[in-house]
Amino acid sequence: MNLPKILLVFIVLNATSVKAQIIKTSNSFIVIPLGVKGGLDESNLSAYLVAASSSEQFICLDAGTINTGIQKAVQNKIFIESNAEAIQKKYINSYFISHGHLDHTAGLILNSPNDLAKNIYALPSVIDVLKGSYFTWKSWANFGNEGDKPILNKYSYNYLTPGVEIDIPNSTLKVTPYTLSHVNPYESTAFLVGNKNDYLLYLGDTGADTVEKSSKLKTLWTAVAEKVKSGALKAIFIEVSFDNSMPDKALFGHLTPKLLMQELNTLNQLSAGNLNKVKIIITHMKPCETCEPLIMDQLKIANRLGLSLVYPKQGELMAF
Amino acid sequence: MNLPKILLVFIVLNATSVKAQIIKTSNSFIVIPLGVKGGLDESNLSAYLVAASSSEQFICLDAGTINTGIQKAVQNKIFIESNAEAIQKKYINSYFISHGHLDHTAGLILNSPNDLAKNIYALPSVIDVLKGSYFTWKSWANFGNEGDKPILNKYSYNYLTPGVEIDIPNSTLKVTPYTLSHVNPYESTAFLVGNKNDYLLYLGDTGADTVEKSSKLKTLWTAVAEKVKSGALKAIFIEVSFDNSMPDKALFGHLTPKLLMQELNTLNQLSAGNLNKVKIIITHMKPCETCEPLIMDQLKIANRLGLSLVYPKQGELMAF
Repeated sequence: MNLPKILLVFIVLNATSVKAQIIKTSNSFIVIPLGVKGGLDESNLSAYLVAASSSEQFICLDAGTINTGIQKAVQNKIFIESNAEAIQKKYINSYFISHGHLDHTAGLILNSPNDLAKNIYALPSVIDVLKGSYFTWKSWANFGNEGDKPILNKYSYNYLTPGVEIDIPNSTLKVTPYTLSHVNPYESTAFLVGNKNDYLLYLGDTGADTVEKSSKLKTLWTAVAEKVKSGALKAIFIEVSFDNSMPDKALFGHLTPKLLMQELNTLNQLSAGNLNKVKIIITHMKPCETCEPLIMDQLKIANRLGLSLVYPKQGELMAF
Repeated sequence: MNLPKILLVFIVLNATSVKAQIIKTSNSFIVIPLGVKGGLDESNLSAYLVAASSSEQFICLDAGTINTGIQKAVQNKIFIESNAEAIQKKYINSYFISHGHLDHTAGLILNSPNDLAKNIYALPSVIDVLKGSYFTWKSWANFGNEGDKPILNKYSYNYLTPGVEIDIPNSTLKVTPYTLSHVNPYESTAFLVGNKNDYLLYLGDTGADTVEKSSKLKTLWTAVAEKVKSGALKAIFIEVSFDNSMPDKALFGHLTPKLLMQELNTLNQLSAGNLNKVKIIITHMKPCETCEPLIMDQLKIANRLGLSLVYPKQGELMAF
């Protein structure tokens, strides 16, 4: 962050202590990544807490890792409380699941016995996976409100419609889902999160339109282009799973640095060259000994638009 | 461990460095717990690597957490290599899954893309969960050799028969499965692992016979009683999920300190009072701020047989 330009404000929310963090008074969102990796490491898989910066009610975008991520945030003194289970109960308002793959759902399922009654929001195809693969009594007790009996009725499924905005109870946030293509015809989801007039966009796993033979990303970019132009869109969380050496046929619905920049060029054109107003948060790098540094190098080289690329860290607070 | 009585041997295996660890020359087994908790914390869920002490080929008993557990073992200098993925590929020979619940399977599924072709051993009811709930293309790509197409053929399912011993390829180990009751009629599995004339017994999640209205544990205790008497059974890994205050109807197929001791009393009687020859390794305590110390206190008080109770730690080597 560019220290001289911003006002230092130590915000202590009602019960959430955003301690020793630098937040502009103009920030609309606070984000706590609970997990940022694209696989393998069970302690650090995709999950992002998002709240209006004036609120302590977080929505959880994907839920690969919950408990271990909260433990990291506790180590970083983000919460006054120290017990991860109590923090999950109190501060997570609801869950938005982009797709049913286990690296985006394991934290929700594993922590369900000790959670409180909450809403799960997802596209119908994603709820079908939660109901049919996880909350089945075979792989896990059915904590949902539909599906295999007995139904424990802890989580309420809310079926989202692409392009239709919903309000989040007990929060000023609103969310609009958009369909993504993740190995066509399998669906994933992007969530456009609004707070008053500001927005951030989170994409679950997605392939590039050229590789997926799809126009899902073009549709999404068209939908948010005006918000890029106006500066209302503050950040885009988007995946880069593999480095450029991965052949198209082995991408399995994921992006590389080259494909990301191809897509972001489209968005930049649709928004009349204003994409450098938006922070690009790189998510879901698939780990190996050399993979993450290589992806970061390739992104730096491919970043001819001069975009602001940000690498989120588990348990470290971000503000937009 | 009782230092004065045992011979200090620093064993350096062919490629596995069991560094600065205390192992008797008479030990038959080395065990590396990759995860020991009974839920919530995604970084530390049930998984135990077991090898003949002269070997570097480990079988993995349950697979809740793999990658993070290997990272912990690497921090403890147990392996010469430092890359968790490479260690999983090289040292894990095969997987034995006690039942399909996610806290016993997540590590296997999440790490499957980067693993090598291996065997998965389980009862038919457990393989049905792997095939029907996880390796389905909906929740995860199908890395199995049966089930939803396309079939990626990385893991080969091996259907176990209760009471029938099998040999493990490239190892001197042999394994006999026994059925457990985990919320009757749902099945879980105990694995009796043999190396020459020595044995250790690992139990997946299980309820007490009295609560489950079952005789599965009695059958198991009867099957191993002679090995307890003779001293051939070196260790029993068994769960205690909840403290004594949990009512029977809320146990969901798990044990408390009181119920564990009730079951171990039965085994002690069947083995003519010889159970104090066997180390009892307490697994799967469900974590909360005060739960684990409370369970440990209650076990200490209930331990009127004077058994040797051991609490495994993630990534710390054990020998039997």
